[in-house]
Order: sequence, then C-alpha cells, then structure tokens
Amino acid sequence: MNKSLRIAVVGALGAVGQEMLEILGTSSLPISKIKALDTATNVGKKVFCRGAKWLVEEARPGSFTDVDIALFSAGGAASAELAPIAVAEGAIVVDNSSHWRMSEGVPLVIPEVNSQALLKHKGLIANPNCSTIQMALVLKPLHDRFTITRVVVSTYQAVSGSGVAAIRELRTQSNAILAGKAVEAEVYPHQIAFNAIAQIDVFEDNGYTKEELKLVNETNKILESSIKISPTAVRIPVFRGHSESLNIEFSQSYAIEEVVSILSQGPGIKVLDDPTLSQYPTPVDCTGKDLVYVGRIRRDISLKRGLNLWIVSDNLRKGAALNTVQIAEKLVELNLLNRR
Amino acid sequence: MNKSLRIAVVGALGAVGQEMLEILGTSSLPISKIKALDTATNVGKKVFCRGAKWLVEEARPGSFTDVDIALFSAGGAASAELAPIAVAEGAIVVDNSSHWRMSEGVPLVIPEVNSQALLKHKGLIANPNCSTIQMALVLKPLHDRFTITRVVVSTYQAVSGSGVAAIRELRTQSNAILAGKAVEAEVYPHQIAFNAIAQIDVFEDNGYTKEELKLVNETNKILESSIKISPTAVRIPVFRGHSESLNIEFSQSYAIEEVVSILSQGPGIKVLDDPTLSQYPTPVDCTGKDLVYVGRIRRDISLKRGLNLWIVSDNLRKGAALNTVQIAEKLVELNLLNRR
Repeated sequence: MNKSLRIAVVGALGAVGQEMLEILGTSSLPISKIKALDTATNVGKKVFCRGAKWLVEEARPGSFTDVDIALFSAGGAASAELAPIAVAEGAIVVDNSSHWRMSEGVPLVIPEVNSQALLKHKGLIANPNCSTIQMALVLKPLHDRFTITRVVVSTYQAVSGSGVAAIRELRTQSNAILAGKAVEAEVYPHQIAFNAIAQIDVFEDNGYTKEELKLVNETNKILESSIKISPTAVRIPVFRGHSESLNIEFSQSYAIEEVVSILSQGPGIKVLDDPTLSQYPTPVDCTGKDLVYVGRIRRDISLKRGLNLWIVSDNLRKGAALNTVQIAEKLVELNLLNRR
Repeated sequence: MNKSLRIAVVGALGAVGQEMLEILGTSSLPISKIKALDTATNVGKKVFCRGAKWLVEEARPGSFTDVDIALFSAGGAASAELAPIAVAEGAIVVDNSSHWRMSEGVPLVIPEVNSQALLKHKGLIANPNCSTIQMALVLKPLHDRFTITRVVVSTYQAVSGSGVAAIRELRTQSNAILAGKAVEAEVYPHQIAFNAIAQIDVFEDNGYTKEELKLVNETNKILESSIKISPTAVRIPVFRGHSESLNIEFSQSYAIEEVVSILSQGPGIKVLDDPTLSQYPTPVDCTGKDLVYVGRIRRDISLKRGLNLWIVSDNLRKGAALNTVQIAEKLVELNLLNRR
C-alpha cells in the first residue's frame, strides 16, 4: 500500500469539504493528487491543500476514473447519484451523506469502534451522522463492559451541521437581533439566533425527526446492538460543536470509578470532569479538536443502574470530515483499497 | 377582601422585579400602593407601575410595617434575612428565592397545581424555581391520570434566569464574537455566547448542581409525590424562555390521544404541536407570554409506557414574576390574607 493516492473531495467548497481539505493537509495518507469536485457553479474556483492549490472541477460521471478514494460530502442527492458511479469508475467512496448509511452491504464505520466492518466493503463506505458518531464512540466501551439496555438522549446541536448557509444565517440573525432589527428565517423553520429549535431534518410519521431516528438506527448498526434509544434532537445557536445529554441504563450494576476509568482509556475519548473547577466540555472549547469530550459523569439518582453523561465534539471534525478521513486512513492501514 | 392592598416589590430593579411591576400593572389585585424596595445603592431611582412612578426605597427592617403583601426577588441572602422580618412586621411574603422553598411549613406553590397548600401558610410562601414551575405544571395532570414513576429531564435555559448582568453578558459577548474579538466570562464560568454550559448554580457532592436538585426536590414537594427524576440543567445563549426535553415513564399504559387531550385542557398549559407545519414551541415565540407551551408530544420508542415532550415557558413570567403575582391573587381570592 505504498502507492500514491489520488483523493477526490466531492463538495469541496462546503463546510465539511473545507474541513476535509484541512485535515487531508496533515493526514498520513500518501497523497499524490487532490481532486476538488463541486457543483458546476463552483467550477474554476480554487481550494488549498497540502501547500498547493487545486482547481475545482464539476462532480459528474467520468470524474472518478483517475481517483483512488472519493470523499463525498455534497448532500444525499449527489451521493445517491454519483457514489455508485464513482465506485463503478474504480474509486472507493467514503460517503458523509445519510443516503447509503442504512443500506445492506454498506459498512457504517467509526474507526475506533468498528473498523472490522471495513473488511466486507464493496467499494462504498458510509460515514455516520455527526450526532451519532460522538454518542456511539462513548457508548461502545461502556456497552462492551456493562451491556447498555436503554439510552435517553437530548442533543444541543450546532448550526454548522446544516452547512455554510446556516452558519451565515446564525451570524446574520444575531447581528440583526443585537441591533434591534427584525430577522427572517430561511435555512431553519424558525429564528435560530438566541433561540432553540426542537426539530432537525424532517418529521417522520411517528412524530420523530429523521435526525432523531438516525441516532437510534445508525447507533445500533454500528454497535451491532439492539439498544433501546429515546432521542430528542434540538438545534441551538452555537456555530460548532454538538453537545448531548445522555441517560444510560445498564443491564449490570456498576461502579462509577470503573466508568470513569473505561471512558478515560476509551479510544478517541477524553474525559474533562472536575466540578470543583467547573470543568466539563463546552462546544466552544471543543471547536477544532479531534476527540469526543465527556464530562458530568454521575450516577443517575433516579435509577440504580443508570448513568448520566454530557458529551461534546466538533461536529465538522470527528462528527464529519475527520471521521471520513480516518476511514480512508484505516482502509490504507488494513490494505483494503483493492478489495471488492 | 375588598380592602386596598399595599404591595412591596423587593428587588424592584432586578430582571424579575421589573417583570413583577409590569404584571402588577394589569393584575386584578386591588392595589392602593406599590412600595419599590431595593438595595441602598438604588435608592432614589424610580420605577413605573399602574400609571404612576414610585420612588425606590431601601429594603431593610422597618420597610414592611405598612405592607400587606411583599413580593421578594432579591436573591437568597436578602430573603433569608428580610423575609422573616417582613412577616414579623405584618406582611405576607411571597418569596421568589430558593432560600425557603424546602423549609417545613413553607408552602411551595404553583396556583394551577397546588393552591390548597396556601391554606396552611404562616405568612411566608415560596415561589418555585423557574425550571421547576414549567415542568411540574405539565406533569401534574399527567401524574393525576397515569401516575408518573420516573422523569429524565434535560433543560435548555435562558440567561435571564441569572439576572440583568447575565443578559448584558450574553449581549456583550455576542457582539464581541461577531466582531471577531476576544470575550471574557464574568457571570458564568465559561463563555455563554454561541456556547452551551452544562452547569447552572453550584455543584453538590453527588455531582449534580443545585439547579438540577431543585427540579427533583421542588417538583416532589409541589406534587406531594415521590417521582424519580434524573436532571441535567444546561445554560444556552437564549435571552428569555426555558426549554425542557422531558422523558416520562408512567406506571400505567396510555393512549397518546388522551395525553394530548389532558394537556390541551390542563390549566396554564397550551399545546403547540403540529409537525407538518413545524409547529412546536420555541423560547423566542414564548417570550412575554404567560402559559407553559408543550409540543413534540410523542410516544417513547424505547419504552412502552414512556412519553417524550418538549416544553417551553417564559422564565421571567410563569417561571418567576407571573407565578409570584398569581400566588398573591390566589391569596386574595381564597381570603387568606389575614390567616396566620
């Protein structure tokens, strides 16, 4: 696997695409070429990566014949259409959209959690949803030790999960409110500045949003588990960093010291938990960082085998771009680039 | 009870005190005099209420000899010292601080929920915590019908719950961040602008904050219940309006239609729940309003007798000032002003 890799980034000008390019800049991947792909309207723009600038080309059939790995983050419709084409043209696709995640035969991977799922890949690998990644990464070592039966999760999600237009909307609306002016909601169904919106993505018939059901279904696919999960997903006026309040029920009794020890040693996890110093993770402190941060570790006072946690991670990094690049790195490490 | 009432507002210049004066302006109480009390530094300032201006006087022993009802919202220390003095001087105190809430013999009252507790008052009545009021008001009719055994609650609380300095801090920090400048945290242990802080009030030895334990202890005192409650209290960058994600477990099975019907008829509650229109309460929409708003009413997909709700209310109105004035109104209605 010492060959030089040609990496395509599809959606190179998006919030996640930009983050991918930054992470590829310091990745250990042996990259010979970056192929920056985006919509036709962005053709001719330039992106920077690894000390060079790369011209943006249109993502379309034929774009992937000279690509080894294509990292997709251009939305579900683009992935639905182009990912199979990219695979047919010889690339391995790591897709950050939700489109293929629950498809049979498509591994849904967090490298620290289930890299073994990559062994069976058929050219298309899915990156889990941002809110799922940080939760599943934390649940994994606890589930291995104590067997989790149920999770109640309420999220506090940043606008960057909705892309650059949403980041702009939070900024524009905040400026308007602070200046005493009226605001208009475009990206979200309600004003997001200085507000909280208990809806992420669209509603399904059972009254849950797609985002909430991702937390349930993706987590259990990744962990190969059947944990009962009760989700509430909420958008709050934060630029970067998703937070989650987790209530976890174990099938076994536990000692809180062992939970702290397991989390402290968990891959990709860092414990920040000292109430005497008001130490616990916040989205601002986790922005631009690579780990999933855990604090407020405490025994549930309502349930003997219950545990409460507060977890925070940068949704654009571990929640999206970083995990995608880490999957590519793991494919190289496990010598799986030609397997199909 | 047709006598004219002399009403003192202690902490008249605070965020809650200002709201009390506004609500007293339209209250049905037969008010002859407003006595605006605050700290010595504010003496001589003026407040407006019922078309008149009232000079601020210092709150101190002797201030209450000509007062029928004293509404306190000047913090725990002021209430600890002055509330018993006010009672001794002949006033009935309705106290918005946390100091007396759990004291034996002090009724803790939400008028729609447990006005009968006022019958035993001894001159001092406590107003529950903002985050407790909206939760207990919603739990009450459901508990009466289905018996609640357990609640997992995660809050999304506005800065106005911390007073005017916190409102200023959110504004100042937001302006700084939007201008690309550094910020300094003074009121809160971390930056609050575009952030989420999983700490409200100080930590107790069990790893929970005082705010979180208020949700447990006050709720059960008000409902005369022993519901198991697992709380996580989080401050978010919202000016007004606390939101809460509730996961409720009943001891009996239920029909979702009956839950909607009970909540729709619940005193002080308004259901806003139509996913097809993205209708559910948000803090911005509930600002300045008097009810507790409930949306996202849906069956827990993880537990047969579980229910999820999203509830929002204006923390300065029903969460504080309005409930305090409503207690005073209920005292008059029940002819309890002279009972002691």
